[in-house]
Order: sequence, then C-alpha cells, then structure tokens
Amino acid sequence: MERMIQRLAIIGQGLIGSSITRAARAYGVAREITITDSNEKVRNRTVEIGLGDAKVVSTNIAAVEGADFIVLCVPVGQIAEVVQEIGGVVRKGAILTDVGSVKGSVIRDTAPYISREVHFIPAHPLAGTESSGPESGLTEMFLDRWCILTPPSGADLDAVEEVKRFWQAIGSHVEIMDPKHHDYVLAITSHIPHLIAFTIFHTALRHERITDSEVMKYSAGGFRDFTRIASSNPAMWRDIFLNNKEAILDVLLQFNADLSSLTEAIRKSDGERIFDDLSTSRLARRKVIEREHISAKPKLKPRDAKPLFRPYSSGD
Amino acid sequence: MERMIQRLAIIGQGLIGSSITRAARAYGVAREITITDSNEKVRNRTVEIGLGDAKVVSTNIAAVEGADFIVLCVPVGQIAEVVQEIGGVVRKGAILTDVGSVKGSVIRDTAPYISREVHFIPAHPLAGTESSGPESGLTEMFLDRWCILTPPSGADLDAVEEVKRFWQAIGSHVEIMDPKHHDYVLAITSHIPHLIAFTIFHTALRHERITDSEVMKYSAGGFRDFTRIASSNPAMWRDIFLNNKEAILDVLLQFNADLSSLTEAIRKSDGERIFDDLSTSRLARRKVIEREHISAKPKLKPRDAKPLFRPYSSGD
Repeated sequence: MERMIQRLAIIGQGLIGSSITRAARAYGVAREITITDSNEKVRNRTVEIGLGDAKVVSTNIAAVEGADFIVLCVPVGQIAEVVQEIGGVVRKGAILTDVGSVKGSVIRDTAPYISREVHFIPAHPLAGTESSGPESGLTEMFLDRWCILTPPSGADLDAVEEVKRFWQAIGSHVEIMDPKHHDYVLAITSHIPHLIAFTIFHTALRHERITDSEVMKYSAGGFRDFTRIASSNPAMWRDIFLNNKEAILDVLLQFNADLSSLTEAIRKSDGERIFDDLSTSRLARRKVIEREHISAKPKLKPRDAKPLFRPYSSGD
Repeated sequence: MERMIQRLAIIGQGLIGSSITRAARAYGVAREITITDSNEKVRNRTVEIGLGDAKVVSTNIAAVEGADFIVLCVPVGQIAEVVQEIGGVVRKGAILTDVGSVKGSVIRDTAPYISREVHFIPAHPLAGTESSGPESGLTEMFLDRWCILTPPSGADLDAVEEVKRFWQAIGSHVEIMDPKHHDYVLAITSHIPHLIAFTIFHTALRHERITDSEVMKYSAGGFRDFTRIASSNPAMWRDIFLNNKEAILDVLLQFNADLSSLTEAIRKSDGERIFDDLSTSRLARRKVIEREHISAKPKLKPRDAKPLFRPYSSGD
C-alpha cells in the first residue's frame, strides 16, 4: 500500500462494523482507529470485549474529525442521515465508504451532503452471519469473500484503488460494478430469496391444516434454510426492500410469471413440461459451476470463511 | 420382540434403498436379505461395493418370493406399477411398505393390486442427501431422523407395529399420520420449498440483466441453498409434484396471496407493514423453537448410533 491510512473511523459497531474494527486492527491497515456507535450500550460493549485499542468516542462527529478514511457501518436506511450529520466535518480529500446492501439509493440519497472534495466510494461486502451485535464480529469475516465496490460516475480512480486495497488487506476479493447492476445482482442472489423465504415461512405458519410445531418438526426436507432465513433482522430487511424496490419488483414480476407457468403445468399434470423446467435449472447450474471452477475459483482457501447457511442435507 | 423378519426384500437400490440394505444388515433386523433393482448396472454395482451378503436377484418377482417384509424403494411414480407386477406373488400375511414422499396417491393407485391378505403400511423416511445411486447410501441415513407411517384406514395394528419397529431398529423416530395430512405437511415443509427454489433459480438464470456466472458467483447471500435445491433429481420431483398436486396447488394459492401482499407493501413503500410481516415470521419461529426444545427434541444423540444394535430378537 503506497500510503497507510492515518486515521480510520468506523461508524456503527454491529456485526459488520465490529468485524471491520477487528480485521483492521489484526491486519494493521491503519495507524489509528476511532470507532463509535449511536447506541451507548454498544459503545460500552466494544470497550468490554476489548475492541478498545481502537479509540471509542461517543459521537459521529468526534469519530470523523481528522479521519482520512471513514467506513459507515449503519443500516441502509440510516446512511444518508449520518452522511448529512458528518458532511460538514469530514476533511478534504478523505475517503468515505459504506457497507450497505443496496447502492443506487444510497448514492442518490447521500449526494446532496457530500462535498466535491470528499471521495465517496460505496462498498458492499458479501459477508455476514445470522448474529448481530459487536460480540458477534469476527476478524475473519471478510476473508475470501467478495466485496463489491460501486463508484459513482466520475469517481476518483486513486480513491477507488485505495478502497480496493483496504478490502483486500482484510482478506476480500474485490469487484467493481455499476451501482444499478449491483442492485439487480443482489436483488436476484439475495433480496428476492430472503423475501420468498419470509413469505413461505409466513404461509406455512398461517396454514390451517398444519400446526406451527409440525412446520418446524418436519422442516429438514428443504424448509430448514427458509426458516433460518426468516429469522433475519426485520428492520434491516425492511430497509433493503424499500431501498431496492425497483430491481426487486422487476425480478418479482418474472418470478411470478415463472411460478405461474410451473403451477399451470402441475395443474394440467403436464409431466413433460415439468421435467423440462426442472432439468433446465439443473443443467444450467452444472454448466455454470464447471465454468466457475476455471474462472472464479477463490485464491484463498475458505477455511475461515463462514457460510451464511448450513449446507442443505436432505433429499425430499 | 415377537418375531424376527425372516426374509427381507428391498426393491430398488438407489440412495434410500441401498441405505436400508446397509442399515438392515448392520443392525441385524432380518435373517436373510434379498435385494434387486430394475437397472442391471445398479445390481452389479451393489455386488461390487459389497452390499452382497444380501442376495442380489435380477427380478422383482424373484426378490419378493417367500419374503415376509418387502420395502419398495422405487420413485413415487413407479410404486403402483411394481405393486401390480408383484401382487400375485407376495405371500399371505407379508408386510409391504414403501419410502415414497407422497402417500395419498400411492395408497389410491396401489389399492387395486394388493390382496386383503397382504399388509400395506406406507412409510416416508425424512432422510436423504443430494447424491444418488447405491454407492451413496449410508448405514446411518435414518439415524435420529423422522419416519412417518401412514396406514390406510382399517390397517392391521400388528403390521403397523412391525413396520414401526423396523424403522426404530435402524435408528428412526416414528410418527403415525393420516395420509392426506402427511401430504399437506410435506407440501409445506418440502415440496413447495423445492418448487420455489427451482423457480427462483430459473428466474435468475433467465434474467437478462445478470449473467449466469454472476448468479453463481455472488450466491453466498441467501441464494446458495436455492441453487443446491435446484440441482435435485428432476424425475423424482416431477413425480412428487404430479402425485401431490392437490395439496401443492392449495398451498401455492396461499403463498401467492402472501407474496402479493408483501409485494404490494413494497410497491407502496409501506415500511410499517413490511416490518410487521417480517417480524411475525421471526417471532413465530422463535416461539416454536422454544416449544420444540421441550416437546420434540430427539431422544437419541447421533453418536449413540452403534449401541442401538437391537435386532428383532432371534429367540422366536
């Protein structure tokens, strides 16, 4: 790294924020680290669990003063607000980045508050567990995981490079992507699956012919992952759904069409069409996996990479 | 135990059939085991991999001749056909059971071919992996898993007891359930989740704004489980969807209503309603999990495997 971060500020010490604090410290990416959280209990907790060779301060303003690299680890719905609050204090030339799961709306909503002399380079690490809070953070959280950067048009290339090096330094593989494209990719690979999982779990619990207890008891066969997903943080997911509305509604439209088509084939007992539909998915998956083995095999061994979900382990 | 199985016949040596062969042998549940498969390669494979202190025969008729306990481990769509084929040869008083994922249609379709002197007690072990073929079978496949028996009305209670002991002897927890109720429970906990996973994977691969390679590459965040499910055997799932049509269509109706409602809340940016929906799922899941800890915690630990060796008593 040409230039070491002099003062790193990390706002928000939940699962992701506290993991960044841990990793930044462990990999020595900054000379000095200042952290904060809007919740006093969380701030106290960071001290108790020993994240405190980072300096813990009680306001966002105090955290960013003099910082040359600022990471916002607050929920998607609060990013613009925090940027508005700190906008006047961030020093010229500083780099500002975030970890939100949606990028288009974040760039749009923060734009009014970011001076031209501050480099906002949004980021989205594809990492996490089902836990929350500073005690759940892990130094290895980002190891061998993807981090997607979505620089707005006209972003400073050196600043992009610097954010890239930051994530690489704590173990991630970095991709650069158009913000809107990012939001579509995530709508498909994460937001819609979560939305569907919430819904199907809801359906199951409301269904009059089967008790809640039966739902859980016999859920090994395909449903376990859905129930696990459905236990994710409701406030976080509400924000994601609201902020990635356009892509989500667009993908849902096609999902509904595909579901109707398969439902219709079942209604008509059209075995051939059902078989064709199911086979297509399987073949496509295989083809992609084979290709991925060549072009996208992780360079690091995933020994510490924590899977979000347990492997599926039941046939039918 | 009153009576040891004298001659156990296992028709079909795929993942489940070969696991039953392994388990039946390991736990000594029968004096003699005869196995077969309609596919010659599979039969040869069972001999090569050493399942062959079971006697391997080349026809279903040869397998069931003289057998007092017959397990059909063929796909749901083939059960009736096999029962028709062997119907005239099964000896009086013999017990016939299966491992199909759907029970109502199996009972209906096999009824014409089963003599009154044969006891058909359908069973569904909730176990499996994504692999197939006799080499993938596991002695411990059924250990600490549920097996649901769905005796038709008027079934012989001793026969039900005997099938129950068979599954317990190879490690399972047994539940007795009405066939139609079973089909609803499985529609919700397994069939619909699979159908949705197939569909969403299909949607993702067809979507013009994201490449197949991106779908796989960034699938850690919720989608990985869907892609894994979507790689399941298409013929098996076609049969399940066709045979459990009524329950599946019924549950899908409610799922579609629930999905529309959440979609509408997103379209209207109704954060409060989204939050309420998502919270309900989470709370319900938690409540059920807490209750399950008391009432449905498995009694055996997976490591208690071996001492379970409690064969049907040979002191008959």
